[in-house]
This record gives sequence, structure tokens and C-alpha cells, in this order.
Amino acid sequence: MDIESKKAEPIGVFDSGVGGLTVACEIARQLPKENIVYFGDTARVPYGSKSKDTIIRFSEQIIRFLAKKHVKAIVIACNTASALALETVRDQFDIPILGVVIPGARAAVAATKNLKVGVIGTEATVRSKMYTKNIQKMNPKVEVIEKACPLFVPLVEEGFREHHITDEAIHYYLESMKDTRIDAMILGCTHYPLLRTKIQQYVGENIQIVNPAYETAMELKELLTCQGIANTGKEQSCSKYEFYVSDAAEKFRDFANSVMPFDVPKTNIVNIEEY
Amino acid sequence: MDIESKKAEPIGVFDSGVGGLTVACEIARQLPKENIVYFGDTARVPYGSKSKDTIIRFSEQIIRFLAKKHVKAIVIACNTASALALETVRDQFDIPILGVVIPGARAAVAATKNLKVGVIGTEATVRSKMYTKNIQKMNPKVEVIEKACPLFVPLVEEGFREHHITDEAIHYYLESMKDTRIDAMILGCTHYPLLRTKIQQYVGENIQIVNPAYETAMELKELLTCQGIANTGKEQSCSKYEFYVSDAAEKFRDFANSVMPFDVPKTNIVNIEEY
Repeated sequence: MDIESKKAEPIGVFDSGVGGLTVACEIARQLPKENIVYFGDTARVPYGSKSKDTIIRFSEQIIRFLAKKHVKAIVIACNTASALALETVRDQFDIPILGVVIPGARAAVAATKNLKVGVIGTEATVRSKMYTKNIQKMNPKVEVIEKACPLFVPLVEEGFREHHITDEAIHYYLESMKDTRIDAMILGCTHYPLLRTKIQQYVGENIQIVNPAYETAMELKELLTCQGIANTGKEQSCSKYEFYVSDAAEKFRDFANSVMPFDVPKTNIVNIEEY
Repeated sequence: MDIESKKAEPIGVFDSGVGGLTVACEIARQLPKENIVYFGDTARVPYGSKSKDTIIRFSEQIIRFLAKKHVKAIVIACNTASALALETVRDQFDIPILGVVIPGARAAVAATKNLKVGVIGTEATVRSKMYTKNIQKMNPKVEVIEKACPLFVPLVEEGFREHHITDEAIHYYLESMKDTRIDAMILGCTHYPLLRTKIQQYVGENIQIVNPAYETAMELKELLTCQGIANTGKEQSCSKYEFYVSDAAEKFRDFANSVMPFDVPKTNIVNIEEY
């Protein structure tokens, strides 16, 4: 294939469900000329309580699906899949694949002044210790405190973002973080930015909240530039975004329309188990 | 196959995860001579927020798996799958299949004196209105008030059974039930019996809590007797229970051992998507 056709190919972005839309959004913002194919695994969501083998199998199926859509690069927008599956799938596929953990770790290392970083995420992400490993690879002096907050995802999903039950859960999970003298805290799950205001209020202004989405889009930009495959098409307005899910397309579309800065007219259902 | 071999075949019981163990337990108690093959779909749990088509596809795969285990009858222990998939799968397979919704409805109709019944369950179960339909088929005079309580499952799963966040959630969901003058309330999700004490305390002694598990085991007993396939083997002590899951076998086994009245020594992993 000639390089000009390659440049026009889309970026594949996937997540266990809707959370990854925050990452897709950031990619669309920083790389407005790129086309995006998004896949949300709404039939098998959530990933955060499941095993490594299962997360790897699910990720492989999704990458095979995205490969059929001729994506030139893939972003694993899900922290759990980034933490548990990235290393394995990178070796298996001939497509550059980025996760959100390494960019998130880099942003936190840049943000911390007193070398103490907090990480909140799903049970599986925290158990993997991938944030700690990556942060300490970048700077071994940084101390990392990880904490799983498994109720945050259902609270967001069930519409409790503004409810005082969410305040109780934030207090329950993050009270111990307050005493640790961390000055940066990674939102290590794509759902958590939707609780950002409440979390920031609770932990106070002395702790800088780090959302890996921004840094991930930056790394993607760098990767595309280095490999010479960034889309340089002149017509900026015609970027194409396609959305696929494994279940409940309508519900996804409603959510996507409340998050994405443009109209999401259509979401397609895929039987992902066939891939 | 001769009838004696048929009688020795196991009962298949399935659920989206661990919740159905409460039903398996009740079957083991009421039908101590029966062998049981249990399947928990831990890779794709929860079902309560997913679409009807997906629940039907998942149920079909599990029934095909159980059919290979030569089960003589199947109990869908999951309320969501009973509500959304039972009618469809009954027509497709040559095995008698029972759900928990009809037995639960029957128990509630027997329990109510002022003909007002409450039902709490997942979003999908409540949306299906299957409890209302079945109750009113049995007695059209009974008024039914259904209420989805989507946070209850994650609260149980994440170990918040005794936490005051759970009290807050119970208050949030069930406050409106208190004003309805219902005198019976169905726990229309297999996780909810694990919150039974707190729920009973909150709604008060004037509302009788109905757990469909008991009635389901009764109906199974009747079905096996009617069809002449109840296990009449003399050696009561040798009933065999097998446990299969689609993910995280160890975690399941720990939970099963905390619920089942005997030691669960082994849980097997099945790639259910292949069925």
C-alpha cells in the first residue's frame, strides 16, 4: 500500500464500554484530521473485576476486529486492558498499539514534586501494579500508592455522579490517600474523569489530578509523526468517526452524544465473540 | 436411554455469576439425591444492564454447554435470564427448562393478602415486566409495583453488605415502596437475598420478603416427579456437584465455599463463547 493511503486509515480506539470515549474525544481534539473507529465492549463490560487471561482474550478479539477495519494504529483506552493485555498483544499484531498506562505514568512523574504519586483504578489494574512498575521505571525515586475503587464505575454507570452516595464512596476509598502526602493522583480508569470535580474537591487543591487521556493523545501524535503516517489530508472537516459496540447500541449512542463534541448519528452492533 | 440412567443424570443450574448458588443450595437441600452441574458466567457478568438479544445469546451458549453435560433438566437461576430468555430457549431445546420468575410470582401471589406486591430486580428484569405479567396471569386483581435497584449487585459483589453505603442505597431505592401498602416483596435478583436482613429491617415486618429460590426448587421437584425422572438412587450421600465458570475460578470457589453447605473442592474454567 502506498504511504498516502496508509495516512488516511483510521485510528482504532477500544474500551470495555463508554469510558474510552473520553480518550477518543481527546484524540479528536488533538488530532482533528484523523479518522477514528471506536469499539466499546458493552456486552462484556466491566473488565475491572475479571482475570488477566480473559482480558487478553477479549482484547485479542477486539484487535482482530479493528484490524479488519484497516486501522493504522490502536489505542487501548481502557486502563484495565492496558495494564493486563498490552504487553501480550503488542507482540502478536503487526499494528502499533498504545495503552493509557505508560502515558499516564509519564504525566504523573512530570507532575509530582515531592515524589509521591497516588493511583486509583479498578481491582484488576491495581492488582497488576503496572502503574507502579512504569512510574518507577521512569524514576525509581517516586513512591507510588495504589488504591482500587471498584464502586466508582457502577456509581457513574447508574447515574449517581451527583448523589451523596458517591460522596460517601469517595470518602470511603480516598480518606487514606489524604494522609499519604501524595501531590499527584492518576485517574487510572476511564470512568473516573466523570467524577473529577468531586474527587478534586475531596482530596483538595494540593493534589494534582492526572487524567491519562491528554498524554495518550500526545503520544499517539508522536507515534504517527515518527512513523510518517499522520493524516495530512487538507480537508480538515471531513474526519470520519465510526462507533461499534457489542451490545445496547442505542444506550451507547445516547451516552456518546452527551460526551462527544459532535453528533453521533449511528452505532453498529458487532458479535465480537466471532473474531 | 433407559429410564434408570436418565434418573441419574444431573440438573443443570446457571446464573450470570455467583448469585445462583443460593438457588443451587436450595435445590441441594430439597432434592438431596440429585446431582448438579452449575455454570456461572463470570466472564460476562452482570446481565442486568444488558439487552434481551445478548441475554438470549448468552443463555443459548450456556444451555448448549449444559446439554453436553447430559443434564436432564435446567434451572435458570438468574432472574434477568429467566425474564428475558426463558420463553425463547424453551422452544429451542429438547430439555425441560425452568426459570425463577414464575415460581417467584406464584409465591408472591400466595403471600399477599391485600393484593399489592412489590418486585425489586435489575434494570433488565424490571424493564421486561415479566413479574407483573406472570403475577397478573395468576391473579389479575393483584397490583404490582416494580423497582430496579442496579447498585445492589455491585454493593454485594464489592463486599459492602454491612456498610452504611448499602443502608443509603436501600433507603434511596426502597423509600417509595414503603408508601405503597404492598404486603409482599419479591427479591427478583439472586444477589438480593444476601441483603435480606437489611432490606427486611428497612421495609418493616408488615412486608413479607419473597425469595423465589424456595419455590423454584419445589417446582423442579414436581417436574422431576411428574416426568418420572427424579433420582431415586438409594445412596443419598453420593450426590455429585460440579462447578464451571467462564472466568476467575478461584474467586468463585472462595465465594461458593462461603455459601454452599459443603466443601467446593474444584471449579473448572469453560470458554463459553465456543458453544
